[in-house]
Amino acid sequence: MADTPLKYDRYDHFLGMEASFREADWCLFGVPMDTTASFQPGSRFGPARIREASWALETYALEADRDLADLKLHDLGDLELPIGNLQESLARIGEAAYHLLELGKRFVAVGGEHLVTLPLVQAVVKRYPDLVVVHWDAHADLREEYLGQALSHATVLRRVCEWIQPGHLYQFGIRSATPDEVRYARRNHHFYPQEVLAPLRTCRAELEGRPIYLTIDVDVIDPAFMPGTGTPEPGGISAREALQALGVLRGLEVVAMDVVETMPAHDTSQRSALLAAKLIRDALAWIAGGTSEEGRER
Amino acid sequence: MADTPLKYDRYDHFLGMEASFREADWCLFGVPMDTTASFQPGSRFGPARIREASWALETYALEADRDLADLKLHDLGDLELPIGNLQESLARIGEAAYHLLELGKRFVAVGGEHLVTLPLVQAVVKRYPDLVVVHWDAHADLREEYLGQALSHATVLRRVCEWIQPGHLYQFGIRSATPDEVRYARRNHHFYPQEVLAPLRTCRAELEGRPIYLTIDVDVIDPAFMPGTGTPEPGGISAREALQALGVLRGLEVVAMDVVETMPAHDTSQRSALLAAKLIRDALAWIAGGTSEEGRER
Amino acid sequence: MADTPLKYDRYDHFLGMEASFREADWCLFGVPMDTTASFQPGSRFGPARIREASWALETYALEADRDLADLKLHDLGDLELPIGNLQESLARIGEAAYHLLELGKRFVAVGGEHLVTLPLVQAVVKRYPDLVVVHWDAHADLREEYLGQALSHATVLRRVCEWIQPGHLYQFGIRSATPDEVRYARRNHHFYPQEVLAPLRTCRAELEGRPIYLTIDVDVIDPAFMPGTGTPEPGGISAREALQALGVLRGLEVVAMDVVETMPAHDTSQRSALLAAKLIRDALAWIAGGTSEEGRER
Amino acid sequence: MADTPLKYDRYDHFLGMEASFREADWCLFGVPMDTTASFQPGSRFGPARIREASWALETYALEADRDLADLKLHDLGDLELPIGNLQESLARIGEAAYHLLELGKRFVAVGGEHLVTLPLVQAVVKRYPDLVVVHWDAHADLREEYLGQALSHATVLRRVCEWIQPGHLYQFGIRSATPDEVRYARRNHHFYPQEVLAPLRTCRAELEGRPIYLTIDVDVIDPAFMPGTGTPEPGGISAREALQALGVLRGLEVVAMDVVETMPAHDTSQRSALLAAKLIRDALAWIAGGTSEEGRER
Amino acid sequence: MADTPLKYDRYDHFLGMEASFREADWCLFGVPMDTTASFQPGSRFGPARIREASWALETYALEADRDLADLKLHDLGDLELPIGNLQESLARIGEAAYHLLELGKRFVAVGGEHLVTLPLVQAVVKRYPDLVVVHWDAHADLREEYLGQALSHATVLRRVCEWIQPGHLYQFGIRSATPDEVRYARRNHHFYPQEVLAPLRTCRAELEGRPIYLTIDVDVIDPAFMPGTGTPEPGGISAREALQALGVLRGLEVVAMDVVETMPAHDTSQRSALLAAKLIRDALAWIAGGTSEEGRER
Amino acid sequence: MADTPLKYDRYDHFLGMEASFREADWCLFGVPMDTTASFQPGSRFGPARIREASWALETYALEADRDLADLKLHDLGDLELPIGNLQESLARIGEAAYHLLELGKRFVAVGGEHLVTLPLVQAVVKRYPDLVVVHWDAHADLREEYLGQALSHATVLRRVCEWIQPGHLYQFGIRSATPDEVRYARRNHHFYPQEVLAPLRTCRAELEGRPIYLTIDVDVIDPAFMPGTGTPEPGGISAREALQALGVLRGLEVVAMDVVETMPAHDTSQRSALLAAKLIRDALAWIAGGTSEEGRER
Repeated sequence: MADTPLKYDRYDHFLGMEASFREADWCLFGVPMDTTASFQPGSRFGPARIREASWALETYALEADRDLADLKLHDLGDLELPIGNLQESLARIGEAAYHLLELGKRFVAVGGEHLVTLPLVQAVVKRYPDLVVVHWDAHADLREEYLGQALSHATVLRRVCEWIQPGHLYQFGIRSATPDEVRYARRNHHFYPQEVLAPLRTCRAELEGRPIYLTIDVDVIDPAFMPGTGTPEPGGISAREALQALGVLRGLEVVAMDVVETMPAHDTSQRSALLAAKLIRDALAWIAGGTSEEGRER
Repeated sequence: MADTPLKYDRYDHFLGMEASFREADWCLFGVPMDTTASFQPGSRFGPARIREASWALETYALEADRDLADLKLHDLGDLELPIGNLQESLARIGEAAYHLLELGKRFVAVGGEHLVTLPLVQAVVKRYPDLVVVHWDAHADLREEYLGQALSHATVLRRVCEWIQPGHLYQFGIRSATPDEVRYARRNHHFYPQEVLAPLRTCRAELEGRPIYLTIDVDVIDPAFMPGTGTPEPGGISAREALQALGVLRGLEVVAMDVVETMPAHDTSQRSALLAAKLIRDALAWIAGGTSEEGRER
Repeated sequence: MADTPLKYDRYDHFLGMEASFREADWCLFGVPMDTTASFQPGSRFGPARIREASWALETYALEADRDLADLKLHDLGDLELPIGNLQESLARIGEAAYHLLELGKRFVAVGGEHLVTLPLVQAVVKRYPDLVVVHWDAHADLREEYLGQALSHATVLRRVCEWIQPGHLYQFGIRSATPDEVRYARRNHHFYPQEVLAPLRTCRAELEGRPIYLTIDVDVIDPAFMPGTGTPEPGGISAREALQALGVLRGLEVVAMDVVETMPAHDTSQRSALLAAKLIRDALAWIAGGTSEEGRER
Repeated sequence: MADTPLKYDRYDHFLGMEASFREADWCLFGVPMDTTASFQPGSRFGPARIREASWALETYALEADRDLADLKLHDLGDLELPIGNLQESLARIGEAAYHLLELGKRFVAVGGEHLVTLPLVQAVVKRYPDLVVVHWDAHADLREEYLGQALSHATVLRRVCEWIQPGHLYQFGIRSATPDEVRYARRNHHFYPQEVLAPLRTCRAELEGRPIYLTIDVDVIDPAFMPGTGTPEPGGISAREALQALGVLRGLEVVAMDVVETMPAHDTSQRSALLAAKLIRDALAWIAGGTSEEGRER
Repeated sequence: MADTPLKYDRYDHFLGMEASFREADWCLFGVPMDTTASFQPGSRFGPARIREASWALETYALEADRDLADLKLHDLGDLELPIGNLQESLARIGEAAYHLLELGKRFVAVGGEHLVTLPLVQAVVKRYPDLVVVHWDAHADLREEYLGQALSHATVLRRVCEWIQPGHLYQFGIRSATPDEVRYARRNHHFYPQEVLAPLRTCRAELEGRPIYLTIDVDVIDPAFMPGTGTPEPGGISAREALQALGVLRGLEVVAMDVVETMPAHDTSQRSALLAAKLIRDALAWIAGGTSEEGRER
Repeated sequence: MADTPLKYDRYDHFLGMEASFREADWCLFGVPMDTTASFQPGSRFGPARIREASWALETYALEADRDLADLKLHDLGDLELPIGNLQESLARIGEAAYHLLELGKRFVAVGGEHLVTLPLVQAVVKRYPDLVVVHWDAHADLREEYLGQALSHATVLRRVCEWIQPGHLYQFGIRSATPDEVRYARRNHHFYPQEVLAPLRTCRAELEGRPIYLTIDVDVIDPAFMPGTGTPEPGGISAREALQALGVLRGLEVVAMDVVETMPAHDTSQRSALLAAKLIRDALAWIAGGTSEEGRER
């Protein structure tokens, strides 16, 4: 910071994340992965727009009855990535996640595209070998390969399955897939198409006490509420349902999470970035800060 | 009007409001309050856009089974305000409301920003000292002050509480607030967060026979349905739910109402102004014209 | 096609419609009717945008558990119409439909404006004199005349009633009408305002075994989900509900259908054309290919 | 106006047009001709949006050095038209124009589509048989018929040629035409393709002292400056050039004018309506109020 | 085409390209190269939108005084590419170009991204070893590598320089570059920053009689006129200047050309696709059909 | 920064501003003044969007032939302001400017609204009593008061005149004003309406050697190029002309500057923020780094 008596802001952190890195329980970091190798600033600054939008919200999450200001949160900024080198980028993303876990911290990663989930889960599963992945998405993302590539946003959960234990994937809200993907999903893990809230309530007991990685592809929400995403699929859940479903996670052991595929650039109403920011705020309000019952009792 | 054999239109009144001022039971007026003191025509013409949009609707409200053409409605146009002089503007808004009530008329005020509700309620409570205020909003608007100002869209309901009797405020649909606001709300009046339709049905019996002021901040509706508003908050109710909730008001003594915070300028689909116009049309169809049971029986 | 060893695409057919005309059970054709006689390419290319959008979907309809690739579907392209000659245009549309029926084929017509439904139904009723018309729309479209014209998008279902047997019209989701239209509807046929899914389930038994023409005006869906339409009416059903309602049609004898009034030009999010394409895909997945129970059993 | 001590505005007149009808030298009226027979409010309210936008301008035209407040101008509102009856609409438009001329007034008509120019010129030529028509447009509009119709926005100047004397049409800025139209134009009248400012300066001497009807199709201006128009044609003049070209008209006997084809509905920046309003303001500043040299001398 | 007495259109070819492949002198083909490996239909259908937009133009190019209908043009559609396999895609693009040249045809390729110019030039230079490349662009595209890749839209002209003779590149309108690129350009070939029309006139004599490949990156035009492009750079030439500059090419031996980097998806005004279509129409009107003087003499 | 081996970015500084505060010759700071006292994040983050957009440009300014990387520039971030307290905000802005000047630094302030220029000039004139203010704007901003307020974006240059010496204001490009403002301007200082580039060249000799404050209201540029501004005024200069006019400043003693009134929120093309960033980059390339002739000689 400059040697001046005045204060300058950079609005460079997510709303209410005022703790220092050292004291933080949870860290947020952006993963502006940019496989399109283009100048277009839109995707590179995706996490930045969500941060910016977060400042139009309150720090207090009314439904969870918890204030971000009472939690120990730190925003690290966006991870620096060697654009154009996919392998090195993925390695660095995984390293960042692992480093945080080693320091005893949990994290929220903000995409960026869905492929970033692969190195993140790889890092988390090293510490939590029995990790459960809870996946909200419009698309199954279970292809063996896509457009000739094994590493793609359309294959990422298939790759994830190669790193976690059999049956440890729970998919919710899927409304687009190939017959092969559906067959694979139904045979190998827990697959709840179309809906999120109801089946999540059904599964909650099974998930209790187990370490959870939550990955939210924002296109699980209908494009009416979330127009700013790369592969909009009509017929999704509402913003209200998504926010309510976060409440089901209260008391579970979510050890890390990501929110991916927000592309706010062309949404003039800014409601896409606002909703992504609110999903992050409410997720932390429900899951960070322990499993005590204090929240509801105020 | 010009001395010519031809007729010129100005589409200067809300759809179906064809009664003269003298014969009207209800009057509509715009309150283009413009605290930003800017040339930008958007906010100054907010009520004008809602009037314009109203002409794309039918005069007949299908769900209420009532036709605006059968009611006695008059549109006064937009109140002339001394922009840049907040105190005088508020005084004049209150005076306009009081004058209408003195003539035995009820009114719909169309904002403009939410602060206009304060002088309107002040006027109505003079004639109806036991006035109940029914408030639909995404935000509690109960701050003691906001950005150093006691008079603000974020404090307006707190100010209203200073003029009505304790406990006479009913808040519905609130999904953004500070802990202080929630505490204040829960201690002092009726506070129903997140939902409108269900709690309104629950409260309906309590409200029967009492004079009601209805204030609708359109951001209570999710920004997917109402992108044209100043402080969009994801996770709101649907347009359908808002329109249904108006039906619960049938038979109640709504003596005045406002619909505020529509900013249609940047919504190319025009659905924001259309929805605001439909809320006004349906509210009048449900609540104007007495409590008889004729409507449903056709 | 050019005499070259390379392959050129035109993306000129709807996703997954790979059968030849001869082998096809169902044919799709666009009806780019353009009564406005204007250069503006938007409406003329409406069906083209829906075709284009279809390629962002999967051929496999997850909820119906059926793959378009397993059906025998052919896309004829857009019918060539003598723009500026309404009578001849309507005649040609009817002729196209009749020709397909004579060859034993069923069809999906893609609008274009709602008036195209009239010649289509006229053609179908010739082969199926006891035809039932199932109509989803925000508007009743039952006026005797509109703006001095007997043939209009606002009169089309009234005209249709003159060709089918009394009581053979089922209307769903209507939320805008005149008192005359409502009276006419309630006296003469089946009229379910506001809702689609629930009343369709109620009626399903009545419809079984009868030849059905399905006409979907996309404005039955709320403008939040379907902003790209000519006469948006707030308060409609969600995209999810519309897609679910298609599932109720499974096992019924739908012999022809249309999807009309999509105007995608000014919807930057492209969700309007995507949703229209998904309605067509899912309708075919549910209704084409017989009444066997194989679908659910995979 | 209502019987109340307060004042209500309707922003129902163009900026600075404060004279009564009786005292006015020039009258403005909207011609919301709506041949598309559709609910879509966009085109019907075209003139209304230009009026609204005018309030974001100053009454003082800096370049002309003249203030609208010093001129005697009246805004009649929008002409009431029997939508759906083209012949009667055209008759009424002509009648309105003729009535104004009979009272010794000049007029600005605001479209609406270009076909409105036909009845307007027919009315003006009755009083000024040697009328010269000055036409700015991207398109020649000289077809014998268009889409089977003799009366169309694409034929309007050909029809106009049937009412004025041979050679009395001056066309500027045309950049789209058929070979037939170009041949017709070059043989029969003054045809200046691509440019407006330079050829208008060249022609000015020829035009002096003759009664002039000025018709501006706003698409003469490049769609970068005027995106809100029905048939945008890239490669047009700039807004600056159009405004400068109006200055060339100073001192000429413009007896009536129109500004047509503004479709501001989908231009979120509002610059299309603003530019149309500024064209009207500046045209009046340059041509209304006599031929004295006072303007430049201040 | 289907066995039916009716005609179906697909608007699947560029306006006025009605010749068969065999008789055509010039062929147009789309190169929907899609290096982003994404579902998003925008870029894949870029050429399709330009074709569609072309139908809002006349076949007659007024400034060139030539009608596309009088030329022998054929539209092949879009080249089928193995998305996800860059090497194979580039090979196939080059093969398509070479095949056309072998048959004695010239071509217009429509992008897609700028990298497609590399295989196209490689093919053309085989037949015309002394080929001159005329390049209009905002960016120099002369980097040695970009984001670690030698093959990129930012390196494409550097690669092209490796295939043509030294000094055979002419660059116009460049307004963004690195110091290295500028140094390279000034040392090795003809480099005219900022402007197109004036320096092209200056160079015209040098270019006469030599075989020319014209590559137009549409971002050479200012984003006010061409907002629909991937890397907009403020300060460019106007649409008018670009169209005029095409006229300078009249009489030169342009043997092939491309128009690349149009991304019309998010431009609601459609002026980007319209301008790209007009550039293609006018280029062909000026350069196709021989060097005779007949055009101007009509 | 966090205690981690990985690097995190915040894209929190303007492109190429890599010097430390201590070594910097020029400092940039944002002045997110927010008189509207609203949550709406758009205006508060105006400077942030320009910073973000800057990363889509090169550090090398081709026309000036100078690289930002060779200059000593530091970006301080956005000044922290007590929103809702106008007097204190203005004081703090002035203090920030004065502090920089005391340390021997020059500055670029990025608005925010035009009123911020007042405290900035007040600070600069303390050190440079013979300061000349060069003002580019569509509006004169010379009113005595506006909407009852002496301190407003519409009065700011009138206020500035009270602090600088008589005749030390040079206004360029003004195309909207009241007669009073024009009279005041013509009597008291240098007033060049409509144009910037030509009159600036004319004045250049007069300005040589004198300390200059440059204030650019981006609305001096036509809204086609700069739609994202608060009070768009059609008929302005092009982006090209604005960039060229900056070149005239080369060799002059510009001691501080501001770029104000960019409101990028609703400009989906992002060209407004890109142009503002390019104006800043090019201004620094032309004026920072001394008066030597080295630039052109490379």
